[in-house]
Amino acid sequence: MKFSSKIQRCELSPMRKFLPYELAAEAKGRKIYHLNIGQPDIETPKAFFDAVKNFQDPVLAYAAAPGVSEFLTAVQGYYANLGIHLEQSDIYATAGGSEALQMALTCILDEGDEILIPEPFYPNYNTFVSVTGGVIRPIPTTPEEGYRYADRARIEPLINEHTRAILVTNPGNPTGVVLSPEEMRLMADIAKEHGLFLISDEVYREFVYGGEPLASMAQFDDAAENVVVVDSISKRFSACGARVGILVSRNRELMAQALKICQGRLCAATLDQLGAAALYGVGSDYFSAVREEYHRRRDTCMEGLSQIPGVVCECPKGAFYLMAKLPVDDTDKFQTWLLEEFQDNGETVMFAPGEGFYGTPGKGRDEVRLAYILKQADLRRAMEVLAHGIEAYNSRKL
Amino acid sequence: MKFSSKIQRCELSPMRKFLPYELAAEAKGRKIYHLNIGQPDIETPKAFFDAVKNFQDPVLAYAAAPGVSEFLTAVQGYYANLGIHLEQSDIYATAGGSEALQMALTCILDEGDEILIPEPFYPNYNTFVSVTGGVIRPIPTTPEEGYRYADRARIEPLINEHTRAILVTNPGNPTGVVLSPEEMRLMADIAKEHGLFLISDEVYREFVYGGEPLASMAQFDDAAENVVVVDSISKRFSACGARVGILVSRNRELMAQALKICQGRLCAATLDQLGAAALYGVGSDYFSAVREEYHRRRDTCMEGLSQIPGVVCECPKGAFYLMAKLPVDDTDKFQTWLLEEFQDNGETVMFAPGEGFYGTPGKGRDEVRLAYILKQADLRRAMEVLAHGIEAYNSRKL
Repeated sequence: MKFSSKIQRCELSPMRKFLPYELAAEAKGRKIYHLNIGQPDIETPKAFFDAVKNFQDPVLAYAAAPGVSEFLTAVQGYYANLGIHLEQSDIYATAGGSEALQMALTCILDEGDEILIPEPFYPNYNTFVSVTGGVIRPIPTTPEEGYRYADRARIEPLINEHTRAILVTNPGNPTGVVLSPEEMRLMADIAKEHGLFLISDEVYREFVYGGEPLASMAQFDDAAENVVVVDSISKRFSACGARVGILVSRNRELMAQALKICQGRLCAATLDQLGAAALYGVGSDYFSAVREEYHRRRDTCMEGLSQIPGVVCECPKGAFYLMAKLPVDDTDKFQTWLLEEFQDNGETVMFAPGEGFYGTPGKGRDEVRLAYILKQADLRRAMEVLAHGIEAYNSRKL
Repeated sequence: MKFSSKIQRCELSPMRKFLPYELAAEAKGRKIYHLNIGQPDIETPKAFFDAVKNFQDPVLAYAAAPGVSEFLTAVQGYYANLGIHLEQSDIYATAGGSEALQMALTCILDEGDEILIPEPFYPNYNTFVSVTGGVIRPIPTTPEEGYRYADRARIEPLINEHTRAILVTNPGNPTGVVLSPEEMRLMADIAKEHGLFLISDEVYREFVYGGEPLASMAQFDDAAENVVVVDSISKRFSACGARVGILVSRNRELMAQALKICQGRLCAATLDQLGAAALYGVGSDYFSAVREEYHRRRDTCMEGLSQIPGVVCECPKGAFYLMAKLPVDDTDKFQTWLLEEFQDNGETVMFAPGEGFYGTPGKGRDEVRLAYILKQADLRRAMEVLAHGIEAYNSRKL
């Protein structure tokens, strides 16, 4: 049986191959510090569960295709607080940020169309772009420059007649890069000048550690036709399993096209949308506390990394990831070795090897992504284990 | 800004254009009998809400990409009761049957590939196929023959070098056609002989009214490589808003390809999957009661239709829809007129005009789909209103 060329261009999660080694390490009694995944350990605010429990309708019916009105109203109010006026028709509820992104890409990309994405990037972008038949053209960055990409001279030479869009993650996964106001403006300008869509994945918006005001590409009125925002409650409220995302655009025709997909798949989950709507009522205290917690974790991580000779890592400004260059030959091999051969007092560590985050073959081989989603004490110890691991790996006999 | 050719080939729901007329009729105080939508009025079993309320984890985390194990186990047990042995890896939890179908089509269809679908068919199939770049080649049927399509002489001439799959809905939406065991075997044979995937949308499996044993294309061991089943809890347990569907196939490579998409979109909603798992524990009494209720409703509908001169409608054997040819020139115009001009004791009726269910231009113009999802007394009255409407429409002065 033959499969589509599109699906054959997609790949399984690059993390998946470590599962057998992970299970084997656990079977040997190893404790593993998991810095490889982006599942926050922060409690989901009770408001979600309360709303779900209070649902009284005898029939769990379809929601309206664009979303439950309580949820759309909540999202509208949230953006109004950021100083961004949206009509409810500028907002669709989706099955996670993933579906919002899939919808946007389906509306925009035809077979062979190109989309610029700064690399390293979230590996699932590969899947979402490939199934449309589109092609990712990476905007190159380096660890030495802190993975910054908002640079006209770097981006414009990559634009050609096939380019349809630019996709950025801001704050960045995997890099933690946060665009400055000037850099945001520049990205919007480039999109406008070249007639491109600017898809801005802003699911980590609240996770900024330099006191920056919360920002969105949707704030540029003059680029309203270009900007498409992908948003989600998953990280904002630590409610990843709810699968409630948001597609936001003031481009009316884009929303009219996307509505065809919304109607086709009928709706996002009704109860989860009601729970999500309630989450938008949590106060700013919630965000301050969460932000401070991650801020401390980031600093703990950076402190640990700074003790390891040869590591290149500029302090990330947002999200809860950092990307670092390690003084090892190949982080993929290093990860396997850490699980198979290494232990430090019975403990080892997992990260996400860097290569899977790059579109350019061969890049990122000595880099890793670390998710700082553990408590501080655990993170401190994980960094110690990592340091000992690097030392032992580099002095092993081959 | 330019949009993809794929999305431009998709259409908004054909029902959507009646909304302004519907609202205007309601504003005039008209009571409308809604036979136009497939939202059941049956109560969702309490087990769903109980499971959701009993969730105790402090963090609503991502589920595993293929599904929550409680849910996969429940589905596996359900199929075992049908005599079909599935591995858990043959089952993925999806965001409704819609996502299961989208996954299957994405894995199979490239730009220009063809898929055979008996017409009339569920209009959202248009969207799901179009976004892959594929093309629907309709298998023609007629109201006079009860919309039956399982006929080698009718299907084989449509197969060419671009054909990749056959998609059937069994029991059928919009026609209510239920394949006999021999017809199911024939469809599987045709798929096998021509090396095609047979995608079988079986979300109405329980809704059969002739005492037939529950059936699935997954029962044919010799066609395990060809068969892909799309399933869902939406209709089975009247839980449409949960958006929990199921992709089933014993074609290992198909499931390996689809896993790329599962991982890309992370997971289906965690809580809803737990609720869905609990639903599989409701006893057979539940299904008997629901089946009897719809059986009575179908008979009420058919009785009403049989009183209307000129209607062509063979009694449907399953699902909760019927497709009928009405003695009017154009059911689209007739629907508009029913909402704008007509009333019978202050009441009118809505159905789904037939044209939107056809792939062949111009077909179905004198047909309608009726969803018998109202209580018997309401259905009886709705049929009366329809009969009076047809009479008045055909004797109006133009």
